[in-house]
Amino acid sequence: MSEAAASSGEEVLRTDVVIIGAGPVGLFAAFEAGVVGLSCHIVDALEEVGGQCIELYPDKPIFDIPAVPVCTARQLIERLMEQCKPFAPPIHLGQRVMSVERIEQSQRWRVTTERGLVFDTAAVLLSAGNGAFVPQRVGLPEAQALEGRHVHYAVRQRAMFDDRRVVIAGGGDSALDWALALRSGARRVTLVHRRDAFRAADASVQELKRAVAAGELDLVIGTIAALNAPDGVLQSIDVKTIGGGLTIEAEHLIALYGLVADLGPIGQWGLDVRAGRVAVDTSNYETSVPGIFAVGDIAVYPNKQKLILSGFHEASLALRKAYTYAFPDKKRVHVHSSYDPKLSERILGTPATEEAHS
Amino acid sequence: MSEAAASSGEEVLRTDVVIIGAGPVGLFAAFEAGVVGLSCHIVDALEEVGGQCIELYPDKPIFDIPAVPVCTARQLIERLMEQCKPFAPPIHLGQRVMSVERIEQSQRWRVTTERGLVFDTAAVLLSAGNGAFVPQRVGLPEAQALEGRHVHYAVRQRAMFDDRRVVIAGGGDSALDWALALRSGARRVTLVHRRDAFRAADASVQELKRAVAAGELDLVIGTIAALNAPDGVLQSIDVKTIGGGLTIEAEHLIALYGLVADLGPIGQWGLDVRAGRVAVDTSNYETSVPGIFAVGDIAVYPNKQKLILSGFHEASLALRKAYTYAFPDKKRVHVHSSYDPKLSERILGTPATEEAHS
Repeated sequence: MSEAAASSGEEVLRTDVVIIGAGPVGLFAAFEAGVVGLSCHIVDALEEVGGQCIELYPDKPIFDIPAVPVCTARQLIERLMEQCKPFAPPIHLGQRVMSVERIEQSQRWRVTTERGLVFDTAAVLLSAGNGAFVPQRVGLPEAQALEGRHVHYAVRQRAMFDDRRVVIAGGGDSALDWALALRSGARRVTLVHRRDAFRAADASVQELKRAVAAGELDLVIGTIAALNAPDGVLQSIDVKTIGGGLTIEAEHLIALYGLVADLGPIGQWGLDVRAGRVAVDTSNYETSVPGIFAVGDIAVYPNKQKLILSGFHEASLALRKAYTYAFPDKKRVHVHSSYDPKLSERILGTPATEEAHS
Repeated sequence: MSEAAASSGEEVLRTDVVIIGAGPVGLFAAFEAGVVGLSCHIVDALEEVGGQCIELYPDKPIFDIPAVPVCTARQLIERLMEQCKPFAPPIHLGQRVMSVERIEQSQRWRVTTERGLVFDTAAVLLSAGNGAFVPQRVGLPEAQALEGRHVHYAVRQRAMFDDRRVVIAGGGDSALDWALALRSGARRVTLVHRRDAFRAADASVQELKRAVAAGELDLVIGTIAALNAPDGVLQSIDVKTIGGGLTIEAEHLIALYGLVADLGPIGQWGLDVRAGRVAVDTSNYETSVPGIFAVGDIAVYPNKQKLILSGFHEASLALRKAYTYAFPDKKRVHVHSSYDPKLSERILGTPATEEAHS
């Protein structure tokens, strides 16, 4: 246990591997960890398992998973959850991993999440896809200093907007739903969207049009051009329109532009990061830092293809090397082959039938 | 077309890739060839698809195919056959590939099989597992010179053994079936097996015991120790037994020890072969000879694991490089992503539904 963990009295979860990212590759990595005899925990920033698959295209058919002629992304995740179930990997959702630090006087790693989980682990496997999904920020330099007080990327405390003038930016379901929901409590709601078409449920779009026609809220087709906040207090927002522009008085801007991928804190761990991806060695998918592995879309090497099936292979090789960090005194990984009766026993709970050999 | 092919008037099959080996990796390679837009032909030495999977353990459960929690080897092959079906790859069974030669004045390859098929191909993908399966030979130096005349590894012309003294070696179904079948025509049949237990159907074992008790044939528990063949003509066979040994007069030895894997002619193609496996570069799984790739169990590189899922990854990367040999003027592979509507159309015959994007 690290000094810091010991002195603060926090609970430290000891494990062989922390898998960062619960997409298809992270879930298969948890299965492979079990196969080679490693314990693991999975951590993901999203609130559900599945990563990009579930976040971006849950119902689109996938054709190139070997031996699965067709399945949706959602079905793929269900199959992988079923496959890793015999090893029951703990999965911690809704929190990013914030830091990965070497534990002093040790070859192990201290991994902390934003909700305060602390792991003491032999190896770290990054299977974080394109990084964590985070709200797309307002692309104006003055926005950052106002974040949390006047500029928001989610509605956490609805009462904050009572009797205030609120600008909501965006054209998807979240933007429309919140524009309609806040109009009753707020002093005035203005929805700003770059074009007169919405990526939202048809019923919401119809209700928006009705509400605008009835004068219950305002709709401006344009883009946020400037935030006017003398002394750090938002007073108005300049909006650029096709015809020119206008200024809207407002105390709050809620920008709901959707999610974007962001490597986030991973960029600060001392890894060899190239154009947002982590460089690895193809013999074991280890990064430039021994004990930290990167597999799936986040990994880069010559001729890397962003194929889910490549991530499966990468994870399998990475975990065999990770084993040498978890069990440095054992000569080699106790590899179960596909046909090993011991593996059958672990997975099925009963020994597989052995054939007679002469 | 090569000079030789043109002058002999033989039919030459022109294709982008010849896949050698119809095991799980070869079948998935045929699918991936279709995905990247390459034509292919598959060749295998066995009489059915499936390779080692079907030959060695068709009904054992496999647990480590990603997203397939459990399936038998036979089911795995069925799934892969279904997956590559949209691209309808021609499969040529029951023949080994004998030679792979550069076509003069060209960057293409001439591939010939033992049954006389000739291919003109841009690339060759070796997915031959542990090589072709061949009968296990008698481990005695004098056996080779007698092969075909006095030492046999299959019964091709049954009449050859009429009125002869025949020793059959082995304890599996083939050995028992042929011992029982030949006793009526041969002068005398002796079955030699190393122990008094058989890897054969129970009914055959019972019939053997009855026939031995009735004096219809002889059974000797022991191992073949020497072949006595003065002037190249087999006269008798020394058998070592637990108690000592005996000599059996015989004109023919039929050894039916089962199949073993053998790299065969592949060893003569000028590749970098290390301990029976072919060395490849992990960025594209190309061998030391440009245009010839090796994937799956036959390939070797640092930390190579003989996992079926590794073969799938290796094949995917190899075929993207193979594309550059088939279409040297195109700048890059036309990679279909998993979610590409064009791929849906090729596989399903109908375009996938496109989602609206704002």
